[in-house]
Amino acid sequence: MTEIFKGMKPSRRAFLRGAAAGAGALAVGGAAKAQGAPDPAITELQPWMQGLGAGVDAAPYGTPSPYEAHVVRRNVEWLTADTVSSVNFTPLHELDGILTPNGLCFERHHAGVAEVDPAKHRIMINGLVDTPLVFTMADLMRFPRENHVYFLECAANSGMEWAGAQLNGCQFTHGMIHNVMYTGVPLRLLLEEAGVKTNGKWVMPEGADAAAMTRSIPIEKAMDDCLVAFKMNGEMLRPEQGYPVRLVVPGWEGNMWVKWLRRIEVGDEPWHHREETSKYTDLFENGKARRFTWEMDAKSVITSPSPQAPILHGRGHTVVTGVAWSGRGTIPRVDVTIDGGKTWHQARMSGPSLEKSMHRFYYEFDWDGSPLLLQSRAHDSTGYVQPTKNELRAIRGENSIYHNNGIQTWYVNERGEAENVEIS
Amino acid sequence: MTEIFKGMKPSRRAFLRGAAAGAGALAVGGAAKAQGAPDPAITELQPWMQGLGAGVDAAPYGTPSPYEAHVVRRNVEWLTADTVSSVNFTPLHELDGILTPNGLCFERHHAGVAEVDPAKHRIMINGLVDTPLVFTMADLMRFPRENHVYFLECAANSGMEWAGAQLNGCQFTHGMIHNVMYTGVPLRLLLEEAGVKTNGKWVMPEGADAAAMTRSIPIEKAMDDCLVAFKMNGEMLRPEQGYPVRLVVPGWEGNMWVKWLRRIEVGDEPWHHREETSKYTDLFENGKARRFTWEMDAKSVITSPSPQAPILHGRGHTVVTGVAWSGRGTIPRVDVTIDGGKTWHQARMSGPSLEKSMHRFYYEFDWDGSPLLLQSRAHDSTGYVQPTKNELRAIRGENSIYHNNGIQTWYVNERGEAENVEIS
Repeated sequence: MTEIFKGMKPSRRAFLRGAAAGAGALAVGGAAKAQGAPDPAITELQPWMQGLGAGVDAAPYGTPSPYEAHVVRRNVEWLTADTVSSVNFTPLHELDGILTPNGLCFERHHAGVAEVDPAKHRIMINGLVDTPLVFTMADLMRFPRENHVYFLECAANSGMEWAGAQLNGCQFTHGMIHNVMYTGVPLRLLLEEAGVKTNGKWVMPEGADAAAMTRSIPIEKAMDDCLVAFKMNGEMLRPEQGYPVRLVVPGWEGNMWVKWLRRIEVGDEPWHHREETSKYTDLFENGKARRFTWEMDAKSVITSPSPQAPILHGRGHTVVTGVAWSGRGTIPRVDVTIDGGKTWHQARMSGPSLEKSMHRFYYEFDWDGSPLLLQSRAHDSTGYVQPTKNELRAIRGENSIYHNNGIQTWYVNERGEAENVEIS
Repeated sequence: MTEIFKGMKPSRRAFLRGAAAGAGALAVGGAAKAQGAPDPAITELQPWMQGLGAGVDAAPYGTPSPYEAHVVRRNVEWLTADTVSSVNFTPLHELDGILTPNGLCFERHHAGVAEVDPAKHRIMINGLVDTPLVFTMADLMRFPRENHVYFLECAANSGMEWAGAQLNGCQFTHGMIHNVMYTGVPLRLLLEEAGVKTNGKWVMPEGADAAAMTRSIPIEKAMDDCLVAFKMNGEMLRPEQGYPVRLVVPGWEGNMWVKWLRRIEVGDEPWHHREETSKYTDLFENGKARRFTWEMDAKSVITSPSPQAPILHGRGHTVVTGVAWSGRGTIPRVDVTIDGGKTWHQARMSGPSLEKSMHRFYYEFDWDGSPLLLQSRAHDSTGYVQPTKNELRAIRGENSIYHNNGIQTWYVNERGEAENVEIS
């Protein structure tokens, strides 16, 4: 086996010369050609090849490699003033594909993580129903279940960016989103079991945390695609995601997906609770606020390169990747620009295209080492196109916190370092 | 709010009377009707509603609820005689939907878990190629990536069952399978980069563990849908799944999905290594063995009820659920029987139907409390129908360990307890 190593030099320099020689675009990635001295990392036996590794007893429930210890949810100390820190962010720049692993799904709490004993948890349906009902978890699991992959995005995702480029990393600008497969019972089936009275037009889910989180949801949505979910990505919900049961409100803002769900009241009008009046409403320039802006519009962001994921390999073949989603359907198309919007390129999508689920896009190009202005622009299945931040500001002003789905710009310098910027 | 609790009794008994009264099948699950005394679990404030829970700093990488501590991979002490325990099983009976969380994906090692430093890891392509190549992980990530959900099943899954019903739980009879989304580079692109010579007809992936796991794969499969994958369910591969890089061989037996992938040799014929001669071949009655039985045929199993997941709720509406998969395509249909095959019912499928991926099925029925003989039978997109174990034995004898895709039977007694049985 030694013979083939003659003249093999797996250095970046060698590859870049090869790549610069310019074979077909998609077929050529970053391989080191067989030139120069052999690389001891491949010619010599590594420590892990020289003896038995750990057995299966080591981790009945597995964890990531110690080399991935930096891949974690992170908070921003100054962002919330609660007694306990109440928001962290999904490390989007470290992820690929369309799914978020459960351990990395961002959290947003209004009273911390309720630690609920599932045996003592109940779900009540009351209000304008023929028969008020109380379910145990075991009761719930006797109803027919469905499985769907949906994104959950906080209405405040990218909220700091209304005031201009603020947070230097897609984890912080766009990381209040996750995308998992939920298993749950259609809320419709539970409401039908209770029997909604003819004047029942709204439902109010209530959480079993100390905040008793509540929101008003029109009965049409409740009877359409909402799920009373108990599993995510196959296993039971994580505590910070509402264990043992949460509401899933596909395509709508995250705070409505009430966690630790304990009650669903049916009423004839909305309740105008705190989280739909003083919070989670969109304040305009004239001081008026728009309420009940539930749906999350089409949005996208380039996750790599990005401030936390610089280009480390120098010039040559470079993979640009990111995610896109829409609360109104699928994402048939994403455009990418590397010159701040002078020219746009249709990105390649890869992975299942599912309703109200995250989509993954890629754009591969040969970087010449000059500075870049990277942007992505999502098109959703209704024909809607993601706007610029300035287009949003022209209509909504700068008082908003919520529903910023504007195009994100990353400036990449000659060294491959990326920065959050805006271009006018 | 107290008024609605008057006369509310959320007991199992009350619900069962309600269910027995017999409303429409699918719409009715297991709700407790409003009768009798109120349930303090819903009328009284629970401890978790009375104060702040943990903040987001508690778990930068999250873990399951302590109440789910029993949901783990398990081994069977006597099953392998290795120095370190070398196989454990996915707790299928605790999962739902189609995805396996990374921490619960079964493991099978031939020399334990290699602990690879990704900075020192290399992937070589050599043999019958124009240009031998060595890639770093950074090099690999400059190639175009794809995302696909695929099942990985060990050829020996259900292997003990050739000798009759042996292991009492679907975790042990069928738990050498997992189903995740992989992100990786098509192997075809790497082979094209190296340039396969015209006499290059086979490839041999080699692992960087001490077993240096190797298998022969025909070039047609290598150029078709194989991936050199580095992510699973969004994040980097877990150590026990080949961190930082493994081969993905969709639909084919798990041992070919070489972990800790360090080398791919191109040759003009298969290598006939240990793991494709003395192991992973199918020994017939006449003493001859069939080699290169790569594809995993259509298979299914009911995951609940099952020996580890008995029916605890007594008579009435009962959810039967399970998983089905085929290495040859999708699963358009699964049949379920509760009477040992006298009558079959077409199950309801829920979740994305993807090529060479796990599918989830449900069958809901009103249990009268009499003993059950539960079976499921998968149909795949080629028209193939999952056989009985006796049909398999008639052709293959009982010397086999591998490729047992026969129909599984669970006997459920009057108390809802389930047992692994066979019916002739």
